[in-house]
Amino acid sequence: MIDPTGFLIPKKKKPYTSSDVMATVAPLNLNQSIIALPHKTPATGITLRYKYQSANLLLVASVKQLVGDSLQLSPLASRIKAEDMFCNSPPCCNDAGFLQKNNSLDEKSRMVGSFKESAKNQLTCDNSERFTRAETDFSNLFARDLLPAKNGEEQTIQFLLEVVEILTNYVRKTFDRSTKVLDFHHPHQLLEGMEGFNLELSDQPESLEQILVDCRDTLKYGVRTGHPRFFNQLSSGLDIIGLAGEWLTSTANTNMFTYEIAPVFVLMEQLTLKKMREIIGWPNGDGDGLFSPGGAISNMYSVMVARYKYFPEVKTKGMSAAPRLVLFTSEHSHYSIKKAGAVLGFGKENVILLKTDERGRVIPADLEAKIIDAKQKGHVPLFVNATAGTTVYGAFDPINDIADICEKYNLWLHVDGAWGGGLLMSRKHRHKLNGIERANSVTWNPHKMMGVPLQCSAILVREKGILQGCNSMCAGYLFQPDKQYDVNYDTGDKAIQCGRHVDIFKFWLMWKAKGTIGFEQHIDRCLELSEYLYNKIKNREGYEMVFEGQPQHTNVCFWYIPPSLRGMPSGDERREKLHRVAPKIKAMMMECGTTMVGYQPQGDKVNFFRMVVSNHAVTKSDIDFLIDEIERLGNDL
Amino acid sequence: MIDPTGFLIPKKKKPYTSSDVMATVAPLNLNQSIIALPHKTPATGITLRYKYQSANLLLVASVKQLVGDSLQLSPLASRIKAEDMFCNSPPCCNDAGFLQKNNSLDEKSRMVGSFKESAKNQLTCDNSERFTRAETDFSNLFARDLLPAKNGEEQTIQFLLEVVEILTNYVRKTFDRSTKVLDFHHPHQLLEGMEGFNLELSDQPESLEQILVDCRDTLKYGVRTGHPRFFNQLSSGLDIIGLAGEWLTSTANTNMFTYEIAPVFVLMEQLTLKKMREIIGWPNGDGDGLFSPGGAISNMYSVMVARYKYFPEVKTKGMSAAPRLVLFTSEHSHYSIKKAGAVLGFGKENVILLKTDERGRVIPADLEAKIIDAKQKGHVPLFVNATAGTTVYGAFDPINDIADICEKYNLWLHVDGAWGGGLLMSRKHRHKLNGIERANSVTWNPHKMMGVPLQCSAILVREKGILQGCNSMCAGYLFQPDKQYDVNYDTGDKAIQCGRHVDIFKFWLMWKAKGTIGFEQHIDRCLELSEYLYNKIKNREGYEMVFEGQPQHTNVCFWYIPPSLRGMPSGDERREKLHRVAPKIKAMMMECGTTMVGYQPQGDKVNFFRMVVSNHAVTKSDIDFLIDEIERLGNDL
Repeated sequence: MIDPTGFLIPKKKKPYTSSDVMATVAPLNLNQSIIALPHKTPATGITLRYKYQSANLLLVASVKQLVGDSLQLSPLASRIKAEDMFCNSPPCCNDAGFLQKNNSLDEKSRMVGSFKESAKNQLTCDNSERFTRAETDFSNLFARDLLPAKNGEEQTIQFLLEVVEILTNYVRKTFDRSTKVLDFHHPHQLLEGMEGFNLELSDQPESLEQILVDCRDTLKYGVRTGHPRFFNQLSSGLDIIGLAGEWLTSTANTNMFTYEIAPVFVLMEQLTLKKMREIIGWPNGDGDGLFSPGGAISNMYSVMVARYKYFPEVKTKGMSAAPRLVLFTSEHSHYSIKKAGAVLGFGKENVILLKTDERGRVIPADLEAKIIDAKQKGHVPLFVNATAGTTVYGAFDPINDIADICEKYNLWLHVDGAWGGGLLMSRKHRHKLNGIERANSVTWNPHKMMGVPLQCSAILVREKGILQGCNSMCAGYLFQPDKQYDVNYDTGDKAIQCGRHVDIFKFWLMWKAKGTIGFEQHIDRCLELSEYLYNKIKNREGYEMVFEGQPQHTNVCFWYIPPSLRGMPSGDERREKLHRVAPKIKAMMMECGTTMVGYQPQGDKVNFFRMVVSNHAVTKSDIDFLIDEIERLGNDL
Repeated sequence: MIDPTGFLIPKKKKPYTSSDVMATVAPLNLNQSIIALPHKTPATGITLRYKYQSANLLLVASVKQLVGDSLQLSPLASRIKAEDMFCNSPPCCNDAGFLQKNNSLDEKSRMVGSFKESAKNQLTCDNSERFTRAETDFSNLFARDLLPAKNGEEQTIQFLLEVVEILTNYVRKTFDRSTKVLDFHHPHQLLEGMEGFNLELSDQPESLEQILVDCRDTLKYGVRTGHPRFFNQLSSGLDIIGLAGEWLTSTANTNMFTYEIAPVFVLMEQLTLKKMREIIGWPNGDGDGLFSPGGAISNMYSVMVARYKYFPEVKTKGMSAAPRLVLFTSEHSHYSIKKAGAVLGFGKENVILLKTDERGRVIPADLEAKIIDAKQKGHVPLFVNATAGTTVYGAFDPINDIADICEKYNLWLHVDGAWGGGLLMSRKHRHKLNGIERANSVTWNPHKMMGVPLQCSAILVREKGILQGCNSMCAGYLFQPDKQYDVNYDTGDKAIQCGRHVDIFKFWLMWKAKGTIGFEQHIDRCLELSEYLYNKIKNREGYEMVFEGQPQHTNVCFWYIPPSLRGMPSGDERREKLHRVAPKIKAMMMECGTTMVGYQPQGDKVNFFRMVVSNHAVTKSDIDFLIDEIERLGNDL
């Protein structure tokens, strides 16, 4: 129907007027309605944008050159709106073109007639250098011009594509090691407003052009958590499939509470949780679970469910219906267990911290002693948390030993595998979680070790029905029993949330795309990289390991000792000085933007670096880079 | 450098072989390295994909037609990878083309030489009907071929663009009234697997082609919550700016706990919350707040903070350190208040339900009577929730009257404005929340009435510092005091979560794009539409309103009475029959996929429809459509 190889308008002295274009270029399509309405005079090198309404086709052309006595236009890009982003060959290219060199007078007049009938169609022209930005002038467009605005479709798609351009460039650069990890600014600097980037909100709308600038600047002043040299958090990396999954999730913009409005996502969640329970080792994958907004909330669920299991009357009557309940977790465990104790009304002093060995693993005998002690005080031990992969050391508590004690004293056993749960996917490393199948509940965050975008955290419970029993309130407006489908699929009443974000899709899609073996490879690789780091620095001058022996997880904890401290005898002065080394190096790293790694004190140990690897983009060269960078920045401290 | 108007290869009997193309088409660019490596034989109508590596340019062409004794190729789309999604005129189109008709022998041989030097470059050809799918053959690509894979950039961008094509088509169709709202399937149907769409996860990876199919099918079998005829939930609509914001948020893939890794988002949250507090009317916008994962959690925060204010020792010692505390909320309020009572250890029987008038508004005298009653029983009244916009009736409790009572008895006043908070943005409607400035805390969900994509819920607290006091656990590994920036910006310890999803950006971006006045217009419009509905049906045959008078919010609650019930005397039989009408109509709506609207019973009232409008795409014609559809489906019941 349309020939995209080029077409001509009569040669004349510039500037060409609208009518030149209208009379010759515009009515290309004989079918009905190809129209050009230039609002500027076209000239060589200028980009014209044609909208072929009836064909749902967009063709972009450049006024190219003079050929004979005509001005030749060159199409640059074409796109079928209905299905394709770019032009598709059959609808627009199969038929022989016309007006390719010079049109006959008959053809011309016919086409002009066709044009005049279709005044609603348009052509814009623009001489911006950058095609996509030139294509639509966003400086005069506003949010109100986008869908559902009348005729807002074209602007909407163009705006979204422009955003996608920003995002794909960001993605590309994130994996490019010549890009900085961050461009650090202090809060007051950003608050005062960077050039062209002002965080303040106002009464009046801003143009879409400004909105695009804001998008660029938001990314510019942020931190590239997917960069191969970002080691700062347990969650890192930018998985492309996961990213696509999140884009789809936000486009679907729905809520997990009912099958009615999230049929596919609800089923995906159900199937994925079952698969995870199978991997944990619960018979037939039976049990229950939910994706929750993060590991802290997942851990909170475990305490709630344990309380409901042993003291269901607390739901109705409150904590006064129960005796003084105590919870146990290691001094190395995540603070969310203590937080759950405070939130749920146990009180944080009733969260008893267990001693660990030098590697950060719970000492089971200490658990048993503290259970006995609590009982002697008349308190009621309720719940034990075993951590599979502690936050700082990456330690795995001995689950089987702890499970023995829980069975002996009839306590709820929860495994916080927020960080280490991913190792269940690895045949090589899953033995570190041996005994997890004996747990009553498990927290497992695919957004950490499995590289799923934030947020994606699962709470898994062995006993079916108990989440529902614990949390249901039977709201009539959401969970009507008289729906036309099996309402057992309405899962919202199991949650402490009402609306619940769709966290499953990206994870499900990644699992599809990588397979179980893909996750296994990812995990094995990250552990190999941390082994590489450990072997590299364990005997290197200027390094001290925080704990002896090869780490269980990817956590490698170490002090860098600057030359000035190397000869210094141990004692308070050295401790104080060493305590300041990691923060100083970290601050310089951030100012330089070259890499990021975490540090913290732990117990009586002064600030040390905690290196972790969960990003699939990391290679040995990045580990080398980190060490070089620490030495470069720390040498003169 | 490259001429996109078309180029020719010698005419010969089909099929053309690789060497035909290699010898003539491929080495188009004299500069260095235009290369064609067809893996299939090109034929008319076939799409070829050229990769001009040195120029970072992709040009796609179709083998078009025979011209003279040559086969003409037509370029369909071109793209500069470095910066632009489509081709840009200056780099690829300014120079005069060559090889445009027939190349001289010299030119040919020179180009072939150039080609042979660049074996890494490639051309693929494909006879798929859809251009973008042809452009990259995803059937042989896997997740492992995407970034960070070596040379994975092109595939990554192509894959993401393919996903974006799926998403933009979805967006476009969502606003098209000829599209169904949903394509309903029962759980067992989806679980058994639709054609080509299987939810099961497996050990082995699937191709990117299958992943794209999965994306399409996930959307296909989902529900279009942005469709102008989706009225089922308080959250509806698909805001394009908000959507762009979510895409960016997932690409940034970071976490709100520290300024360190979310500098821009942390500041945006701070500024936006301050703006919201100013709108509430707290002096200077002072106070505190957080975006939380939904209104239920925001309400839970309010109860936690109230408890901490009056009984801070509960954080440490648990609920046993406090007397028996009671909370008050209306029988029409959201179930999350009761849920918070259960979760936090108050017990749901200590959540006292207040009577409402016939419009669903709390009767203040009942509150006072119940406070006195509780005190007489020795219980301690702690907290009152006033709802601004109830879930079903859209009622606004009289905040000032309730605030008077709270002041008199020294109780915490929370306003649950999850649904109605948006009306604060409207000069016309904000009087419905008069007195909100007297509240100690407010829940306000921009993801409901303000059209922000899910999830976006704020808990706002008048007293500064109390969120921190209530929830802080001072985890050393995250909240190091010795950072190089002002650590007051690390907000994570105020939350009950550890990692916290970035919910602010889309909202901030929408505010920038619409301005405060844009939100006001949106809200006023939605309320006008519900007024239109109310006026349309209040006296219409076959309708009964659930409560008298014009609704306060966009909630319009009504029974549709099928002709068969219209003459029937009131009584149990009619009630039972009427109770079944709304579910039946709803089920048919869903089977037809034409529209969706919620229904529920309330107190002693049998199932009725609750119509709500929060979607900016809705027009009067959609309201008319809903009524027509109810009558069409319900007429014969």
